[in-house]
Order: sequence, then structure tokens, then C-alpha cells
Amino acid sequence: MPNVVTEIAPVLVIGTGLIGTSIALSLTRAGTEVWLEDVSSESLDQAIAMAAGTEIPSAGQPKVVVVAVPPVHAARVIADASQRFPGATVTDVTSIKQRVLEDAIAAGADARRLVGGHPMAGREVSGPAGARVDLLDDRVWILTPVESTDVDHLRQAHRVVTACGAYAIEMSVAEHDQAVALVSHTPQVLSSVLAGRLVAADEEQVRIAGQGLRDMTRIAASQSNMWSQILAANAEAVADVVGQVASDLSRTEAALRALAADPADSQAQAVLTHVLEQGTDGQARIPGKHGAAATRYAEVEVMVADRAGELARLFVAAGDAGINLEDVRIEHVLGRPSGLVGLSVRPEAADALIQALQDRAFDVRT
Amino acid sequence: MPNVVTEIAPVLVIGTGLIGTSIALSLTRAGTEVWLEDVSSESLDQAIAMAAGTEIPSAGQPKVVVVAVPPVHAARVIADASQRFPGATVTDVTSIKQRVLEDAIAAGADARRLVGGHPMAGREVSGPAGARVDLLDDRVWILTPVESTDVDHLRQAHRVVTACGAYAIEMSVAEHDQAVALVSHTPQVLSSVLAGRLVAADEEQVRIAGQGLRDMTRIAASQSNMWSQILAANAEAVADVVGQVASDLSRTEAALRALAADPADSQAQAVLTHVLEQGTDGQARIPGKHGAAATRYAEVEVMVADRAGELARLFVAAGDAGINLEDVRIEHVLGRPSGLVGLSVRPEAADALIQALQDRAFDVRT
Repeated sequence: MPNVVTEIAPVLVIGTGLIGTSIALSLTRAGTEVWLEDVSSESLDQAIAMAAGTEIPSAGQPKVVVVAVPPVHAARVIADASQRFPGATVTDVTSIKQRVLEDAIAAGADARRLVGGHPMAGREVSGPAGARVDLLDDRVWILTPVESTDVDHLRQAHRVVTACGAYAIEMSVAEHDQAVALVSHTPQVLSSVLAGRLVAADEEQVRIAGQGLRDMTRIAASQSNMWSQILAANAEAVADVVGQVASDLSRTEAALRALAADPADSQAQAVLTHVLEQGTDGQARIPGKHGAAATRYAEVEVMVADRAGELARLFVAAGDAGINLEDVRIEHVLGRPSGLVGLSVRPEAADALIQALQDRAFDVRT
Repeated sequence: MPNVVTEIAPVLVIGTGLIGTSIALSLTRAGTEVWLEDVSSESLDQAIAMAAGTEIPSAGQPKVVVVAVPPVHAARVIADASQRFPGATVTDVTSIKQRVLEDAIAAGADARRLVGGHPMAGREVSGPAGARVDLLDDRVWILTPVESTDVDHLRQAHRVVTACGAYAIEMSVAEHDQAVALVSHTPQVLSSVLAGRLVAADEEQVRIAGQGLRDMTRIAASQSNMWSQILAANAEAVADVVGQVASDLSRTEAALRALAADPADSQAQAVLTHVLEQGTDGQARIPGKHGAAATRYAEVEVMVADRAGELARLFVAAGDAGINLEDVRIEHVLGRPSGLVGLSVRPEAADALIQALQDRAFDVRT
């Protein structure tokens, strides 16, 4: 991508943590000159040692600045960069946008050169040591121009996304914050609240937990610190969705109480049915693999022994038969050294998979 | 298990649907004489054709009756069976217990011979055609004696569970209904309500959905009809938990609104942190694989090409190295034919797995 690379170089990345260093690594891979800056000289040295870029030369003027600092510092650093580099496009990677960009403009950032950004990538580790040259590969990177963003600067931000190997989706600042409130921040709150209900539960109750509860509470194990900052920074949009969910639940609760008093209450039955049917409809809207429209896969269930090599034997059988597995689900069976494995394949491949597995004496549950 | 088998035989299974026929098949496998009964002669014939048992002889007196009919008919069928077979232990498999057993006693069932039951097993299909001889193998089967249940009859119910290859856990009727309200029914309501919020969402919002949202909405795809009956039959217990969750969410919403107005509001910050930390604590209580205490596994991430045989190659590498995979997670990457696979292993095995995969040129993300 010689054109893209020439137009944006040099890029200054401020903040050499996980995301900043990963961006610097992928820009360097693309052939862009990358300058680095961090308040921590330790972090900076580590990123430079990883060949993510070089220290910014004195009086150096980058064409693009990528601000990759914690949300709490983002606005100030953006405004500062905008003033230090009066010709540069300034973008950031903060996972919330409205407050950060408003505060940055209030602090003196030039709105014409400002493009918000949010690469949808991350890891459960932090710091430059966790950075990866391919962290952004094939990821969605949301760009949120503000009202006064100049089209040339928006174009520069697009080039950065492309050079990093990611895909840009443009949204308004408000759209972004509402979108992540719905698809990321509210699910986190729900998972935490549901899992929180298990704290006071009896051992016996927790013991009969099935796959549904496991799935619903997986993200509750995420870092409380980080999430508390993210939720606070997108407080209003998250409050809106959480409030809607709370009110849906209260309506469901009322319907359940009505049904407890009178199982024939047809209005309450209708509420309950509506909640469940809306859920089915909403779930079907989530895109399938690779962002394609949701595909219904066929699932083939196989009981396998819980020992090294058994899963391998299973996948070899599928691979030998030339069948591509779309997804794998492992359900653990209480008390016994075996597990139920669900293999998702395109519906037209299901019969061939079943045949291939049965030929190899697998315990297929048809 | 000749003793168990002799003590309970003959067993009459009333209702030859998925669960009833599966129970009949496993009892037959254990060597118990099994009689079958169903209002649908078609269903009954199919179960008999599957060698699940034989039609009940006229004037036949079973030692145990297992009632496996839909919740809405359960109480009446239990009471009827209790009167037709005055010496028999009567148990059922209904996924809610309080209302069913109370109604059965009110309808004339002998409480001394009554033992509620709930095998924690099922499939997303119904009818005898979906039945499996191993459906109950290694599953938890909750038994809920009522206050007047005679110990001899409780023992008979335990023998049925054992003969089916399942594990019995005893709970009171109320404990059972509260437990499933918490670990099964409320998660279903939450998943449906969250997924329902996607119905009116913009295409762009849904498009950026990540793994967290996918996990949280998976069970929302379940059959609305069936769930509407289950929730209605356990209405009060579910209403209690759903109400608690709604109130937790409302408190969280209020904290978020306070933080939107004043990011420095320390009381609101404390509420948010508490919600997230409780979630982490509650999640940690869910038992790990095979009902053992929760184990923290190490996860090794590998980027694999999305084509037949690649997963096989990965699992073969793990198997060759003698490493047992505890869990597998596949994350789909938008827009590209590759996927991120998370392999969970015991922490002490992680280094060996990474080494084995790197030796085979896998793209391990360390």
C-alpha cells in the first residue's frame, strides 16, 4: 500500500500500551514511518525495543497523531497534540467517544482535524509487552468524525485503519456510544448482575448450573477496574439501555406475578410470550461468522472421552472428510470423564459429518 | 446392578416423549422390566418399536411409576397413577415441582408414595424419535421428596436414578424451584430481554456485536412456546429472582445517571465497582468441568485459517504433545477467512502447549 503509507507518514503514536504499540507495529509492518511517545520512558523503551517505531525527533511534525492513552487522559492529550502539531490529523482509540471528543475540543483541540476512532480489538493483558503486530488484522475499527471534521483529515484516519489491516466503519459520535452501550457495555452489566446473584446462592444451587448460566456469566469474570472506568465514561448511554432492560424485566416480573396468582391470565401470558419471541427475533439479527448475515448451522453432537488426543481424533475425522467446522461447543458432563462436543457445520454438510464420525466409531448423538 | 433392577421392576413410564422414552431405554438397558403408556398410540407404538419397553398388561401393578408428561398434565396424571397403582412409588420428571406436586396431592395422589424428580437433561427436539439410551448418563437428577414421602419410596426413586446412569441430588420442593429459577429460568429471561433489545437496533449497531453479546444471547434462540410454559409454571420463584435482577439494574442505572452528571460522585462509583466485583465473585463460584470446584484454566490463543483440516491439525498437535484440552472457544474474525481459537488447558500445561504449537508453525498469540 505505497500510497496509503506515503500519505500518512510519519505517524506519531502517543501512548505505547497494548493498543498503541500494536498499532505502531502494524503501521511499521506496512512500511509507514512511526514515531512514538509515552509519559513512561520504560514503556517507550520497550516499544522501541520491539521495533514498533522510533522516538519522535525534536521539532518533528507528524502528519497523523494516534492518541492511545487511558480514557481518563485522552481529552487532554488530544488537545495538547492538536496544538503541538498544527497541521496533523488527530485521532484516538478510546472506547467511548462523546465525552472524550467534547472535552478535547473544549480543551483546545482543532475540530477540523479531529477524528474519533475505536478499534474493536483487545486482549485481557495490558502494556507494550502484550502488543501484537496482528492485533488489528481484520478487525472493525469505528471512525467517528465530529461535525466540523474536514474530509481530508477523515480520509487520513481511513488510511491509518487500512494500513493497520483493519476495516473502517463510520458512525457519528453519539451513534458509536449508543452502539457500544447496547452491544458491549450493557451485556457486561447484565452478566455482572446475574453472576452477582450467585454470591449468596446455596452450594447446591450453584452445583446444578448448566451451559446457559455459564455462557451468561463468562464476561462477568472481566477486570472490574477497567470496566468501571469504561461504564462511567459512557454513563448516560449505558444508563439508557440498562434502564430499558430493567423496565423490560420489571414488566416480565409483573406478568409472572400475575400468572402466579392466576395461571389463566391471558394478558400476562401474552407479555411473557412477547418477551420470549422478541428475544428469538433479536438473536437472529446478530451477524454470523465474518460479519456475514446470520447463518443457521446444523449442530452434530458427539460424546467424547476426556483425555488427550480424543478431540484431535474427532477433528481429524472431520478434516479427513473435507468438512469445515464452523463452530465448536464443549459441554461438560457432571461427574464423569467425558464431554459432549457440539460441532456446527453448514446444514448440507451435516449428513456427511455424521457418516464420517460413525465410520470411525464415534458416539454421535443423532 | 441386579439388586437395584429387581427392587424397582416393573417400572411403568407414562408418557413416551423424549424424556420418558429415554428413561425407558436406559432402564431396559439396565435390565429392568419396563411398561409403557401414552395417550397417543402413535407415540407408544414408536417407543415400543424402539425396544424401550412393552405395553402395560391389563391389571398390571408396577412397583414404580415415572410420569413423563407435559407440565400442564403432570398433576392429574400423577394423581391418577397414584390411585390406579396403590402400592407403587410415583415420581415425575417435570422441570418445576411445587405447583405440580401440590396439585397432584390436591387431586388425590398419596403423598407418602410421591417423590418429585427433575433429570437435568434434554435436547432441542421432542417426541420418542429424539430419545437416546444415554440421555441420562452422568446427568444430575434432582429428587424432591415432599414432607410426607415415605423413606422406602424415596429409596425407590433413587434406584430409578441409579439404574438410568444418572446422579441423584436431593432438594426440597421449594429449594428446587428456587434453584432452577436462579440458574436456568432467570438466565433465559435475561437472555431474551437483552436479545429483544436488538430487534429495534440499527444494522450498524448489530454489526459490531462481539463474542460477549453472542454468548449472552445464545439461549434466547430457544423455543418460545416451551419456555413460556416453564416460566409460567415456576412464576413466583422466577418473579422473585427477575425482580432482584431488575432492582440491581435499576440501582446500577441510577449510579450511571449520577456519574453522567458528576463523574466524581464517589458513592455512584462505589455502586458500580460493587456490581462488577460481585459479578466476578459470583462467576468464580460456578463449578468447573465435571462438577468439580471452579478451576482457572490458562488460555492459549491461536489464529487458524478457516478451512477444512486446520482445526484437526491444531488438535492433533495438542494431542501429540499429550496435552488434554479442557475447553475450546472459537472467535470469528470479521471479514476474513480466519478465526481465533482459544484453547483452555491446566495452567501447568500451557507452556508445553505453546511450545508444541509453535514447533508446528502455528500462529500462537502469546
